[in-house]
Formats: sequence, C-alpha cells, structure tokens
Amino acid sequence: MSTIYATLERLKISLPPAATPAASYQPFCISGPMVYLSGHIAKKDGAAWVGQLGLTMNTAEGQEAAASVAIDLMGTLQAACQSIGKDLEAVKQIVKVTSLVNSTPEYTQQHLVTNGCSNLLAEVFQTRGLHARSAFGVAQLPLGACVEIEMVVELNA
Amino acid sequence: MSTIYATLERLKISLPPAATPAASYQPFCISGPMVYLSGHIAKKDGAAWVGQLGLTMNTAEGQEAAASVAIDLMGTLQAACQSIGKDLEAVKQIVKVTSLVNSTPEYTQQHLVTNGCSNLLAEVFQTRGLHARSAFGVAQLPLGACVEIEMVVELNA
Amino acid sequence: MSTIYATLERLKISLPPAATPAASYQPFCISGPMVYLSGHIAKKDGAAWVGQLGLTMNTAEGQEAAASVAIDLMGTLQAACQSIGKDLEAVKQIVKVTSLVNSTPEYTQQHLVTNGCSNLLAEVFQTRGLHARSAFGVAQLPLGACVEIEMVVELNA
Repeated sequence: MSTIYATLERLKISLPPAATPAASYQPFCISGPMVYLSGHIAKKDGAAWVGQLGLTMNTAEGQEAAASVAIDLMGTLQAACQSIGKDLEAVKQIVKVTSLVNSTPEYTQQHLVTNGCSNLLAEVFQTRGLHARSAFGVAQLPLGACVEIEMVVELNA
Repeated sequence: MSTIYATLERLKISLPPAATPAASYQPFCISGPMVYLSGHIAKKDGAAWVGQLGLTMNTAEGQEAAASVAIDLMGTLQAACQSIGKDLEAVKQIVKVTSLVNSTPEYTQQHLVTNGCSNLLAEVFQTRGLHARSAFGVAQLPLGACVEIEMVVELNA
Repeated sequence: MSTIYATLERLKISLPPAATPAASYQPFCISGPMVYLSGHIAKKDGAAWVGQLGLTMNTAEGQEAAASVAIDLMGTLQAACQSIGKDLEAVKQIVKVTSLVNSTPEYTQQHLVTNGCSNLLAEVFQTRGLHARSAFGVAQLPLGACVEIEMVVELNA
C-alpha cells in the first residue's frame, strides 16, 4: 500500500467524496499539472461548522475545524485525481494553502488555527505536503462557517 | 459568429476595455497559457460601487454588483487575449474565481452574492466557464466598493 | 552588475534571508517555472509590525509597512532562486501580488497602502515587476500585523 493511503488508514481517516459546492461552481479545476481546489468551508454533521474565532470558538477548536477541512480537501483532491484515472499517489506536491479564518477584529492566531490543516497535510504527504501558505482573518464566511481553506496542488506529469 | 460572442450579443452585453488600475499595477498578467486578472472592484456610473452587504446592500443587490464585475473581468480578459492576437475564443477554461465581499460581521451569504458572477461566466463560456472558487467576507475594500473579484484563466496553446 | 542588484544597491536595500514561517509551512514553493511565496507579514525590529489601518495607523505608515514586506518578499524570492542555483536575475516577471491590509470596517485605502509594495517591485524589477494585483481589507492578521502580502513569480526557463 502506498505511503499516503497507509498513513490515512493508520490515522483512521476516511476520505469523503468531492465536496458539493454550495453554489454554481466546481469543487476543483484541473489546469495542466495543477489542481485548483475551491475554498472548502468547515463542516460538522453535514452542515456548516458555524463559529467565529475570538467570539464563540478558541484556537484549539479552530485547529480541529481546520484539520477537518484538510480531510475534506483531500477527499476532493482524490476525486480530482480519479477524474483523470489516478489517485492521491499522483500528487507531486501541495503547492499553496490559503486559509480564511472567521475572526473578530481582536483575534490574532489565524496561523495557529491553520496549523490544524498544515500539520495534517505534512503528516499524510510528508515532504510532498510542505507548502507555501497564507492565513488571515476574514469578517465573515459563507453560511457562518468558522474556517474556509483552498489549495493549489501539482500532480506528477 | 462564435458561441461566446453570440451569447454576449444575445445578452446585450458590451464588453468594456481593460479596467484601468486604481494604482501602480496591471489589469492582467499573462504567464505561459495562464492569464491572471487583477481584483476588479464593482463600479457604477464609472465610480466605485460603494456599499457593504448586511448594512447598506442586500443579497440581490450584491449579485447584481458581482454580475457587473464579471462583465468588467470579461472586458479585461478580452484585452489580454487581444494583446497576443487572439479573442475570447482562445479561452480554454475559467480556472479560478476569488470573490471578496464587503461584509458586516453578521452577513453570511457571500456565496450567493458571488453566484451573480459565476452564473454569468457559466452562461457565456458554457462548460469552459465552470471554475473552482472561493468567496468570503472582507472587512472593507478599496474605495469602499461592495465586491471585488479576481480570476485565473487558461488559454488554448 | 545586473540591473536588479545595482538598483537594490542604489536604494541601499539589503535583502534578508528567506522569512522563517511562524508555523508549519514553507516560505516558498517552486512548481515548474513558478514560485509561490507565502504570505509575509510586516515586521519591525524582528517582531510583527502590529497595527490596524484606520485605527492605529494611517495610509503613509501602511505604505511604509508594505514596502518593508516587499523587501522581505524579495529576500525570500532570492532564496528560492538560490535553491535552484540562480539569483534574482532569473525572474521573468512578477505575476501576481495579493495584499491583505488589516483594516477597520471604515478604512478604504487598501490600494494606496499596497502601492508601497507595488512601487518598489516596479522600481527594482522595472517592466518585469509589473504585476496583476488584488488588495483588500481583512478583519485581522496573524500576530496582529498591519499588512500581509503574498506573491506568485515566474522564473526564466
């Protein structure tokens, strides 16, 4: 078994199917070797994971939400790979992660929240999971979600 | 006449010239087959379309603003294509749309606002217009604009 | 001496080493000819340059902060070039700049703040420094920084 799928099994992570967009767009778009993944909002029990950091959620809860988004992103990424007859082993590297954290004007730990996603990607993809990243605090997110994360991923030729 | 231009004519949409940046940058940058379009703010009567969702504008008005940005983006995209001797028929696919919605901390319908842009792109470019997307609420935008949208587009080789 | 390094010397700019991420990610990721640079927060005396436009900082101060981020980004970009045996002369063009300005809900000059970065890039890289750009106001940034900027850069083949 590949390293990636063995790690997912060890971590008891089941990847969901590609996210269903909440509106008129696609969960991913493949352009050359690159996969652009739409912003995925955190979900809990199938609905938006509602909350705002600094108001109704603390950093540890935000990290948990960010990790759950990473799982959903990997599910969508797997679906992208499958759409061209491959699987997650086709990933050359996670290139860029952009993390939008629903924040009060006082909350300043967006980078720590986002580590919930980055750490999981690094554990699953190892050196292929090291990425460039931006994290920042947004005024609000669709459906009141606490975190939204998008990714750009390069596949092997 | 091409499908794209025939659709624009049917919808009575006249594309403007490339947006003039409000500062020291370019309206677009071409890199290989990709066109990166700068964030375009919504405009009304030639000036910034000022407003904030949840405070001075509702979702329907935001959708109208997002659709107007889509028209401006298509104008800039056409200028990008023309700069290399092509037109909008050179578009292979709209890859990524990122939509920044000027939002109060309570407003949570950024995805619906952004549909004003996504739906128009899908109507004009059909399957080539299906894109990955992120939409989120920002604290404020340049000149007080209600919506700002950027795009990444792939052209045919 | 190359134009780029001669300009940096004339401007008395010393490039720092690649930024050390405040969390579990990389300062840059190279994918084909593209370099994706992580969001770099403004720093002062080695710590986050704390402030919010419209509250504790004015536009001129924000521009100064954005220019300082441009220097840090060029430092990281140089490190990216060096990692593949090149230097800043390998830059084909600055493709995209995304600027996140820590803003009150009333502050609307994010584009002017961001000019502090764009103008310096244009001065150092000349026509190669002209880029697509988005600038917007965020609710808050990691560590309370006033500005965070990320870039996508194309290198010569």
